[in-house]
Amino acid sequence: MKFNKVLDDVKIYEAGKPIELVVREYGVDPKDIIKLASNENPYGTSPKVIKRIQEISQNMYMYPDDSMFQLKESLANKYNVESSNIIIGSGSDQILEFAIHAKCNKNSKILMAKTTFAMYEIYGKQTGATIIKTEDAQHNLEQFSKLYKEHNPEMVFLCLPNNPLGECLDTKDVYEFLKEIDSETLVIIDGAYSEYAKYKDENKKIIVDDLISKFPNVLYLGTFSKAYALGGMRVGYGIGKKDIIQNLYKLRPPFNITTLSLAAAIEALNDEEFVKECIAKNFEEMKRYEDYAEQKGFEYIPSYTNFITIKFDDKYISSEVAQNLLQRGIIVRDLTSYSMNAIRITIGKKEQNTKVFKQLDEVLDILK
Amino acid sequence: MKFNKVLDDVKIYEAGKPIELVVREYGVDPKDIIKLASNENPYGTSPKVIKRIQEISQNMYMYPDDSMFQLKESLANKYNVESSNIIIGSGSDQILEFAIHAKCNKNSKILMAKTTFAMYEIYGKQTGATIIKTEDAQHNLEQFSKLYKEHNPEMVFLCLPNNPLGECLDTKDVYEFLKEIDSETLVIIDGAYSEYAKYKDENKKIIVDDLISKFPNVLYLGTFSKAYALGGMRVGYGIGKKDIIQNLYKLRPPFNITTLSLAAAIEALNDEEFVKECIAKNFEEMKRYEDYAEQKGFEYIPSYTNFITIKFDDKYISSEVAQNLLQRGIIVRDLTSYSMNAIRITIGKKEQNTKVFKQLDEVLDILK
Repeated sequence: MKFNKVLDDVKIYEAGKPIELVVREYGVDPKDIIKLASNENPYGTSPKVIKRIQEISQNMYMYPDDSMFQLKESLANKYNVESSNIIIGSGSDQILEFAIHAKCNKNSKILMAKTTFAMYEIYGKQTGATIIKTEDAQHNLEQFSKLYKEHNPEMVFLCLPNNPLGECLDTKDVYEFLKEIDSETLVIIDGAYSEYAKYKDENKKIIVDDLISKFPNVLYLGTFSKAYALGGMRVGYGIGKKDIIQNLYKLRPPFNITTLSLAAAIEALNDEEFVKECIAKNFEEMKRYEDYAEQKGFEYIPSYTNFITIKFDDKYISSEVAQNLLQRGIIVRDLTSYSMNAIRITIGKKEQNTKVFKQLDEVLDILK
Repeated sequence: MKFNKVLDDVKIYEAGKPIELVVREYGVDPKDIIKLASNENPYGTSPKVIKRIQEISQNMYMYPDDSMFQLKESLANKYNVESSNIIIGSGSDQILEFAIHAKCNKNSKILMAKTTFAMYEIYGKQTGATIIKTEDAQHNLEQFSKLYKEHNPEMVFLCLPNNPLGECLDTKDVYEFLKEIDSETLVIIDGAYSEYAKYKDENKKIIVDDLISKFPNVLYLGTFSKAYALGGMRVGYGIGKKDIIQNLYKLRPPFNITTLSLAAAIEALNDEEFVKECIAKNFEEMKRYEDYAEQKGFEYIPSYTNFITIKFDDKYISSEVAQNLLQRGIIVRDLTSYSMNAIRITIGKKEQNTKVFKQLDEVLDILK
């Protein structure tokens, strides 16, 4: 059967390997598996949120409040905006989908960094849009500016900090760049890991109400999947001017998050203390990865997130390292598909990281 | 900011009013609210499923197994098909979205009954496709055939049984109709309420493996939202030939259902006994609604689902009846937006229905 031609060019996203797959394919005991491939919060969900979900689990038969009144109110308070500036998605991923499908078609152009979140390109290609990438893997605003002037794209993506590399632009530089952008160009600022970035460095902090009032063509994205430890519950949000939000609403399916997800997100916002503790531990543990890489002579990208990207240059082949770790029950992300000889490792808990270093020592020894 | 022109013509779906809204707007105690507006299973989720979710609620921080291996295996066994014939969606709603966006564009035509599930038209208009509807509100295959020959649409929708009206075509008539359809036309058979229909009448039963092997251009949809009592968890599925499924996969976002939803759906398939009991009670209680309507002299549509549509003709105005019930904490669906002077009521539990009849008596008395 024939389908729309644009689909011919669409790739399917390759998710981090789940624990279930490693159990099935390598017969590793689930208890021994360390999954550091999808940037989940390794400290788990807040106990308060778990308690809340257990209390209301009998409500699974009921659709959620599709207005998402309470969650939008809470987010509006947190960000000092109106509820009408907010749209909730099944992960911020779904807001990307709404925005790209609302704005782009086969005549559109989309500008992004060479190596950034894969779904920007995948959703873009679903509309038939042309993808324009900077030469540098990491965000380089000079290259963004040059390409912006050259191509006049309908959309620009800034991933701050950037997944899967971990770098982050300074907010003042982002503001300077945004001044150059036409008001008809929709700029997405993807803040999926922003809680980590602003903890590490005040210069990376974005004040969302200031951002969208100064730049009415910007849509800011946030998520509960990372620092808020609800990756499995699929809740994210977009914040922007009402006219943008209203247009995205036209593509929002009803009941796009679950009844339990809605309750979990609301409760997660009541436990900011938990989030702060997780982030503090994250950077303590990240230091150990940096030390490890330096000791082995590997280059790494200083990271403003909960993961670190380690490059192997000519010393090892990243796919072999990842595969050998996988057989030992340690799941990391090989970046070969991003044309990099590197692996991305989520910063785990202390005891997990200790095991990773031990296993990595052994694997590197075998592959030497 | 300008967005794609097709959005100008897209309406936003009006969901059944949530309990939270009635609490907020009318100050009714949540305990006194009876929500019979969204065709949820009023008997609640299976206790086995609730237990399972409570056990694994600490996994909310982790993304689900994006291959959905185990759920697809279970569904493949249930329907006697291969896992590769199945795609999982955030409700069968999302499969509709994939199918329409994969198949249609502004040059496409989509054929459906005049009064059927609103999302067919909404997703259709998102692609710019032209919507063609039968003259009759209920499914009329003669009209479908005539319009099919006249317009040669890219997609045809059959909602079996039909939401929001409740009627259901016989399977043998559907098969005869499908023989007339070109293999390049994608036919969606939406079986969201099929469990109810086949319980009431064997002639409505669709054997899915037979259907898709005889008609490779058919995509069958099922859901966990209705008989399986997981409306709030957003899990549905499409079953069809591999080439259709593979194309829909190109539009599937990663992690499109939650970690808890995946586990809930798997467990729900292990408790078919619960589903059967709910359906049996549904039709016992539906008899009371039929009796009530007859006693009041209201016409109703014989229903193969878990809801009943009652028409008021000139006797009452449906929006007034619905509004008066709402103020008393009883939420039903007014069908004015479907150009009908009728209300759709989900068949509740015995004690709920008794209260509905009592309150409806009072409301009708006031509005007389």
